[in-house]
Amino acid sequence: MNKAQVVEAVVLAKKAKQLTWESIASTLGMSTVWVTSACLGMNSMPEQAAEKLCELLELPSEAKSVLMEYPTKAWSPAIPQDPLIYRLYEVVGVYGDTLKEVIQEKFGDGIMSAIDFSMEVEKQPDPKGDRVVITMNGKFLPYKAW
Amino acid sequence: MNKAQVVEAVVLAKKAKQLTWESIASTLGMSTVWVTSACLGMNSMPEQAAEKLCELLELPSEAKSVLMEYPTKAWSPAIPQDPLIYRLYEVVGVYGDTLKEVIQEKFGDGIMSAIDFSMEVEKQPDPKGDRVVITMNGKFLPYKAW
Amino acid sequence: MNKAQVVEAVVLAKKAKQLTWESIASTLGMSTVWVTSACLGMNSMPEQAAEKLCELLELPSEAKSVLMEYPTKAWSPAIPQDPLIYRLYEVVGVYGDTLKEVIQEKFGDGIMSAIDFSMEVEKQPDPKGDRVVITMNGKFLPYKAW
Amino acid sequence: MNKAQVVEAVVLAKKAKQLTWESIASTLGMSTVWVTSACLGMNSMPEQAAEKLCELLELPSEAKSVLMEYPTKAWSPAIPQDPLIYRLYEVVGVYGDTLKEVIQEKFGDGIMSAIDFSMEVEKQPDPKGDRVVITMNGKFLPYKAW
Amino acid sequence: MNKAQVVEAVVLAKKAKQLTWESIASTLGMSTVWVTSACLGMNSMPEQAAEKLCELLELPSEAKSVLMEYPTKAWSPAIPQDPLIYRLYEVVGVYGDTLKEVIQEKFGDGIMSAIDFSMEVEKQPDPKGDRVVITMNGKFLPYKAW
Amino acid sequence: MNKAQVVEAVVLAKKAKQLTWESIASTLGMSTVWVTSACLGMNSMPEQAAEKLCELLELPSEAKSVLMEYPTKAWSPAIPQDPLIYRLYEVVGVYGDTLKEVIQEKFGDGIMSAIDFSMEVEKQPDPKGDRVVITMNGKFLPYKAW
Amino acid sequence: MNKAQVVEAVVLAKKAKQLTWESIASTLGMSTVWVTSACLGMNSMPEQAAEKLCELLELPSEAKSVLMEYPTKAWSPAIPQDPLIYRLYEVVGVYGDTLKEVIQEKFGDGIMSAIDFSMEVEKQPDPKGDRVVITMNGKFLPYKAW
Amino acid sequence: MNKAQVVEAVVLAKKAKQLTWESIASTLGMSTVWVTSACLGMNSMPEQAAEKLCELLELPSEAKSVLMEYPTKAWSPAIPQDPLIYRLYEVVGVYGDTLKEVIQEKFGDGIMSAIDFSMEVEKQPDPKGDRVVITMNGKFLPYKAW
Amino acid sequence: MNKAQVVEAVVLAKKAKQLTWESIASTLGMSTVWVTSACLGMNSMPEQAAEKLCELLELPSEAKSVLMEYPTKAWSPAIPQDPLIYRLYEVVGVYGDTLKEVIQEKFGDGIMSAIDFSMEVEKQPDPKGDRVVITMNGKFLPYKAW
Amino acid sequence: MNKAQVVEAVVLAKKAKQLTWESIASTLGMSTVWVTSACLGMNSMPEQAAEKLCELLELPSEAKSVLMEYPTKAWSPAIPQDPLIYRLYEVVGVYGDTLKEVIQEKFGDGIMSAIDFSMEVEKQPDPKGDRVVITMNGKFLPYKAW
Repeated sequence: MNKAQVVEAVVLAKKAKQLTWESIASTLGMSTVWVTSACLGMNSMPEQAAEKLCELLELPSEAKSVLMEYPTKAWSPAIPQDPLIYRLYEVVGVYGDTLKEVIQEKFGDGIMSAIDFSMEVEKQPDPKGDRVVITMNGKFLPYKAW
Repeated sequence: MNKAQVVEAVVLAKKAKQLTWESIASTLGMSTVWVTSACLGMNSMPEQAAEKLCELLELPSEAKSVLMEYPTKAWSPAIPQDPLIYRLYEVVGVYGDTLKEVIQEKFGDGIMSAIDFSMEVEKQPDPKGDRVVITMNGKFLPYKAW
Repeated sequence: MNKAQVVEAVVLAKKAKQLTWESIASTLGMSTVWVTSACLGMNSMPEQAAEKLCELLELPSEAKSVLMEYPTKAWSPAIPQDPLIYRLYEVVGVYGDTLKEVIQEKFGDGIMSAIDFSMEVEKQPDPKGDRVVITMNGKFLPYKAW
Repeated sequence: MNKAQVVEAVVLAKKAKQLTWESIASTLGMSTVWVTSACLGMNSMPEQAAEKLCELLELPSEAKSVLMEYPTKAWSPAIPQDPLIYRLYEVVGVYGDTLKEVIQEKFGDGIMSAIDFSMEVEKQPDPKGDRVVITMNGKFLPYKAW
Repeated sequence: MNKAQVVEAVVLAKKAKQLTWESIASTLGMSTVWVTSACLGMNSMPEQAAEKLCELLELPSEAKSVLMEYPTKAWSPAIPQDPLIYRLYEVVGVYGDTLKEVIQEKFGDGIMSAIDFSMEVEKQPDPKGDRVVITMNGKFLPYKAW
Repeated sequence: MNKAQVVEAVVLAKKAKQLTWESIASTLGMSTVWVTSACLGMNSMPEQAAEKLCELLELPSEAKSVLMEYPTKAWSPAIPQDPLIYRLYEVVGVYGDTLKEVIQEKFGDGIMSAIDFSMEVEKQPDPKGDRVVITMNGKFLPYKAW
Repeated sequence: MNKAQVVEAVVLAKKAKQLTWESIASTLGMSTVWVTSACLGMNSMPEQAAEKLCELLELPSEAKSVLMEYPTKAWSPAIPQDPLIYRLYEVVGVYGDTLKEVIQEKFGDGIMSAIDFSMEVEKQPDPKGDRVVITMNGKFLPYKAW
Repeated sequence: MNKAQVVEAVVLAKKAKQLTWESIASTLGMSTVWVTSACLGMNSMPEQAAEKLCELLELPSEAKSVLMEYPTKAWSPAIPQDPLIYRLYEVVGVYGDTLKEVIQEKFGDGIMSAIDFSMEVEKQPDPKGDRVVITMNGKFLPYKAW
Repeated sequence: MNKAQVVEAVVLAKKAKQLTWESIASTLGMSTVWVTSACLGMNSMPEQAAEKLCELLELPSEAKSVLMEYPTKAWSPAIPQDPLIYRLYEVVGVYGDTLKEVIQEKFGDGIMSAIDFSMEVEKQPDPKGDRVVITMNGKFLPYKAW
Repeated sequence: MNKAQVVEAVVLAKKAKQLTWESIASTLGMSTVWVTSACLGMNSMPEQAAEKLCELLELPSEAKSVLMEYPTKAWSPAIPQDPLIYRLYEVVGVYGDTLKEVIQEKFGDGIMSAIDFSMEVEKQPDPKGDRVVITMNGKFLPYKAW
């Protein structure tokens, strides 16, 4: 089994058992966003989480070590097309320079890490239409002079 | 004066007066992210905000109507290169499918609007290194069948 | 069964039963354009529509839930080549700035939604050659300052 | 004067005289969309329209023949970025195959012309948010066997 | 059977029966270029031509309706590489602006249709080396003001 | 003066003198397509033609040698956008494999030269709409085995 | 059997019989470069060469006609990556304008044919490190005025 | 003065003095190809050659050190368009894998250097049309295991 | 067996035998980086190394000659996406011109070879977070004038 | 003065004063690679370094604050062309997967930072040709589960 095959097995088992990402994450005791990303093959699972997932979804035994493998991250196409994902790309395009100005004004020259990083998604009820709230939390890494 | 010239004038005046985006935003009574984006020419200013900005930065009188013009939004290159902005693009690449799964599980088929949208940046102090917290808040728009 | 397999099954059944998109849409009581797009895997079907379609086309029972799944929308190539589709891309290229000017003059700064959106195609008989009339109808979304 | 210079002169004069595209079009007795596109240099003006425009906007005399010149149509970038224009591109991407199916079911094998073509934009008031209605009208051109 | 499978069947049968495109076209009573393009899946065949072709090449009965289907036209790569095809692309690149000037001088603002279009290839014997003569014939479509 | 400057001078002089490409070509005793391409900087002129052109258009004396210079041929964008030129690109895309089949069936393995090459444009009157006739004539170059 | 299958068969047979391209070429009485290119599917073989090759490598009988077929030449990626091939691309990039200047100074306006063309590779022993000598020989084709 | 300005000065002086690249190279006692490439800014000149060139072309004194500067080599577009240069790119595309096979059969695993490299262009008279002979000579660099 | 199949066999055997790249390299008596690259199909193995590897991993006998084959090196996508690899690309982007300045100041006009080249990776313990140390060692190749 | 203007001033002053990057770095008491990158506008200078540089190179007083500004890092083209820089890109392409395997085997799932990063260039004398030694040193950043 490779990553792609385990992802497929996870998605099929989740559908067959009528589970949600949220309930799977709750069983594992971890965040929904992170658990989903690991189930889609974009993060490696610590052993305990992989074990619990295999149990919950009754995956074949060899799935555990594959879930623990370090993935090669990739996406296609380079400019996203699905409207939900494109809108995020558009936000980066429209507000990229703004975020650079504001972050560097607050922190100095450096970046927000995408590795020492976490993200949450919340639903904010609103009578004019519910709102999606995405919170990104990344360590600030200052540029180093040497 | 066109947008690009006004952006340059704003940036020079801000530097000459040693202002920060945060203090400018506070004078205008609006969010730092939004004010910065409008000053960089990526959003159009309501009349009152444009007026206050011109006053604060002592911009030439014709700047006001240019700040109110509706911009054509563009960015280059399509795949960002500056490390701070690239990391955000990478987050969209790595977590795009995850966000689609999680948002659509919570809300149904649809997207987060990038138009009816706001964003904040906060500094979260941390002894192991301060953290950047970016919060995006967009209206959920359900797909419509007809 | 995944989306691609259900699309193939729909297209084969439609051909075998010698149905048109228009007659299928009429049976479902919905618009021809929307029904076609959902049958081609570009929109998710509400339960009732999926049920009716499965019945009409005698699709396997598992097709229903697949028709209801939220699709990942994608197209290739990024610059269309089929002449019918390219002409629409050309219209966007030639008249894009014009539409921006005209829409924003009428509505203020904002966009036409492609999500809260519907589209119809009509045939307008004309002795000099019949004409295609495409009507797009999307909610205006004003940019938000914050 | 070349096309680009005349476009700039038109836009400045329109702003100085506080005219709208709609009022200019009405003075010329032609459609707003077409007049705007010609003023932005994407269509050539018939002599009479060019003359009226020069008079209305008090353009230099050599502008008339430039407005009548046949433009080389171009747009950049090939994949649009401004959100209003991108949404139209997205519609072509998401619904391109659908439109091909529906148009060819109604008309036979062929395309909708983008040359023998007109387009209108209307505002449809709606208590839940006004709607943009774009109507495209193009001659159907059947493929020819020989 | 889909288009690609029918194209393969046509090519194999043509080889097995040692026929030429010219002789096939002559049997169908149509132009060699058009018949070849339809056999390669780039044009849809009228019923009678499809019937004759199936008979001549002893194709399976379901091939007929597939030959009549309206193809989605595509080519790859976007910039051709095979030297014969590249040379034609080069001609369009080198002489594109020239053809625009000359055609529009003769006809006014508009284009040559690629839909209401035919093309022939002839061999012109020449002692210094035979010459290829390609004749394109397309309806002129004037731009429309509205 | 460089090529670009001479092209601009030619175009301005042609406009000022109200000449057509056809009349210029006729004065030079050469084909309209070739003369236009050389005037647009895509071919080098033999001395006599350059001399006649300078005289006819009253170009500065240094223009002659520039017209005789060997140009670096280039076009942009690689995938044309102007509709008239795009249609020619589309013809190459749709009919490229067909032309390869037909030409190589008639001539053997090889190509049509784009260098030992000429092209003509004719207007074919037609009550249903005049037609553009483009004739390309290129030497067949057989591949060489060695 | 198609070209790709015959190429694979040739490569396997060459390996099994422990032959070199040079010895195969010598058996066929032709150049190593040309024979290799034809064996890799980039040139069509004259009947006699195809026959000899089939005999030498004990290829299945249908391979002969496939070796004689006219190939569609293609390469991927458009910008080569393998270091040996990239260095040649780099030479074209770095010295392209130089070669244009030097060739056109010697021959007049025109090009070196890549069709009426041959190429040899020699090993030039050198105590400081042997050297690769590539010789390209192409017919000069002058541009034609008409 | 920068490289681009010196290149322009060299080209203008060469034209004014009616020199050829060959005669300039001969004065410098070096190869025509190399001298041309250095004059076009793609190689750095040793001091003595730069000095002689400045003298021969009567360039301003500061040109000497600029000719000696190490250039940043670049070309555009990445896929060449000028027919003379494209043909060389095509040769690399069509024969790239062939050259890899033949060179590595003769030399082992490695590449031909494009740095420890020279190139000559010769004219080979031929009654059927003169031929261009390009000879590339590069040191073979074997891959190193470690 | 081809390269890709042998790479897969190596990776599976390494996993089954719970070996590390470091231990495999140590058994072969060569560097970890080089051995890994050869096992991933990006370098050809000398006979002795291939033999030892086959023995150690109990690979099928035909694997040995495939490990010795000269690979065609390729990577995809051209702009890396996996964050670990992208950071290296970013270093080349950000520091490319700097490295050119510094290397050429120390060595003269020329490059660092990527063929006569070796690389090591070390772990440098650090209480603030361990550090990756990558050392590249390539022969300097001076440009040659001729 | 903006970054680009200061970079130009630095480069001109360095040339006029006949300084090397190494001597400038030594005066500043910092690494040659870092100082060069900051002088080329790819890193921001701490105040003290900027002050010393202005003094050493006698730059205009406003240069100091510009040297301290946080740059937007960018490079062009995305796939490098200059041979020295391309070789580094090639190393990333050929050895990217290898580095991922080796680093992650030593450190676990994570990346080498390009921000908390330093780099040195050394000359290693060698009778067979001096060697370039590039040492990269970046903090290992482990992926975080949450």
